[in-house]
Amino acid sequence: MRIAIVGAGALGLYYGALLQKSGQEVHFLLRRDYGAVKEKGLKVFSVNGDFHLPVVNAWRTPEEIGAVDLVLVGLKTFANGSFTDLIGPLLGEGTQILTLQNGLGNEEELARLFGAQRVIGGVAFLCSNRGEPGEVHHLAAGRIILGEYAEVNHGRVEELAAMFSAAGVDCRATDDLKRARWEKLVWNIPFNGLCALLQHSVDRLLAVTATRGLVKELMLEVIGAANLQGVRKPIPVSYADAMLEFTDNMGVYKPSMQIDREEGRELETGAIFRTPLRFGTGEGASMPRVEMLATLLEQATTPP
Amino acid sequence: MRIAIVGAGALGLYYGALLQKSGQEVHFLLRRDYGAVKEKGLKVFSVNGDFHLPVVNAWRTPEEIGAVDLVLVGLKTFANGSFTDLIGPLLGEGTQILTLQNGLGNEEELARLFGAQRVIGGVAFLCSNRGEPGEVHHLAAGRIILGEYAEVNHGRVEELAAMFSAAGVDCRATDDLKRARWEKLVWNIPFNGLCALLQHSVDRLLAVTATRGLVKELMLEVIGAANLQGVRKPIPVSYADAMLEFTDNMGVYKPSMQIDREEGRELETGAIFRTPLRFGTGEGASMPRVEMLATLLEQATTPP
Repeated sequence: MRIAIVGAGALGLYYGALLQKSGQEVHFLLRRDYGAVKEKGLKVFSVNGDFHLPVVNAWRTPEEIGAVDLVLVGLKTFANGSFTDLIGPLLGEGTQILTLQNGLGNEEELARLFGAQRVIGGVAFLCSNRGEPGEVHHLAAGRIILGEYAEVNHGRVEELAAMFSAAGVDCRATDDLKRARWEKLVWNIPFNGLCALLQHSVDRLLAVTATRGLVKELMLEVIGAANLQGVRKPIPVSYADAMLEFTDNMGVYKPSMQIDREEGRELETGAIFRTPLRFGTGEGASMPRVEMLATLLEQATTPP
Repeated sequence: MRIAIVGAGALGLYYGALLQKSGQEVHFLLRRDYGAVKEKGLKVFSVNGDFHLPVVNAWRTPEEIGAVDLVLVGLKTFANGSFTDLIGPLLGEGTQILTLQNGLGNEEELARLFGAQRVIGGVAFLCSNRGEPGEVHHLAAGRIILGEYAEVNHGRVEELAAMFSAAGVDCRATDDLKRARWEKLVWNIPFNGLCALLQHSVDRLLAVTATRGLVKELMLEVIGAANLQGVRKPIPVSYADAMLEFTDNMGVYKPSMQIDREEGRELETGAIFRTPLRFGTGEGASMPRVEMLATLLEQATTPP
């Protein structure tokens, strides 16, 4: 399969490298890493074993790549304004677009621009970061859940899942992408939000009764909103307790948004907070704490 | 009148100095400032004019002072556990206790320990801070609203108000102390809380639509709780907009709790947040944002 990686941060580089290693024809659209990758290829330092791809198809513009079978989108969501420029030149008649981006609203925007039938969504559980140019670090996890955005029924999601599995990625298809996206938000909204706001790791939040209670209240607001979105099967309230226990086992863990804030990077508050709030309150959900957290986070990260 | 000042921070030193200057017999219970005051007296640098009291009654223990007519309590509320030790030795048969402390729950605790008939509450609007030992800075305002805690009706609050007025303090009596305390919280909870949490001055909160909206939501939660407390006349919802406009005119202003946090001092979250929350939710008020703000503030100021 001829694949273009758009948004080659840690996520794009990591999955792209695995796909190339498994025999797919992968093309990376690069900025920061272009020179290093062109010269020395791509090095992956992974908990599953390091490897090096000495020769990689590295490009500066999508026009140089041309039409592909699959566009894998790993852009930070605040760069979604570049979809037309970056993805348009990669589209042929049957090109599929898979977004592995965070939060909500990405499939909707891709569908609006390029047609809903092209769009597939993936929820990625990956802990990775970029190292030196031409290097990527895979620290933990990596699972992907894939689903159709629109009602398309020709088995292509299962084919993509098989391709990822063959590349060594734990990948499965779901018939309820919406629920998978919201399930991830049940964790992401409280933990990414509170840890980034307070600059505390998850264990510190969970150790204090009041803060642990707040995490759970936030989770319940997200679950309530999710279940008004036309998911096939509601997320049970007990999912909140399950996520709390799951997180207890993570120990001293900093969510990605906390690290982004520490390192002065822009936060994905739109896709992870504002769009879920709009979808949730649009269906009548009450989300005062999620809204307050979004507001505080935006305010805390706005320069004076 | 023989008066003891207990809790001689900026507030106690300032009002005590004015009362002494006006001819009252004032005794200061001091710790940090004892040596300086004993030696050089008390200097007040005030927007209303500086003055110096060369001789001041300075003491290290309440036993040295003995029974007084009035105890003026200016302790930080997290020191209320010292009420018995600090106030007990000052009480004679008719001694009145006036608390000018922040937040809620102080009259209740004084009444429990020393009898409700002794207790008078005062809501102070004072902007002051301590300077060098033996010095106090009065930056703005200073108004006091006095009211009975229990149903006592012999005009003593009016007498105290007259005494403060004679000392140059803008002071009036109210027949609804509860309402006066809650009105102050309508401002204190959002602005002290958010400014201390975010380390932003009030103008930065008011300049952003989402944060301004959050301030108003917090105010409305406090007003809702106040109106369930048996106040004589409900606080109107329009009070929130009035407070927003009032604060717009303050410009670049840091509330005291923001300064306390900047300077690493303990915050009065109990009296300003947790007790109002207990009183409010105890009467069925919905206060999710106030509760969340209290939790975030406590978490942000808890050492790891």
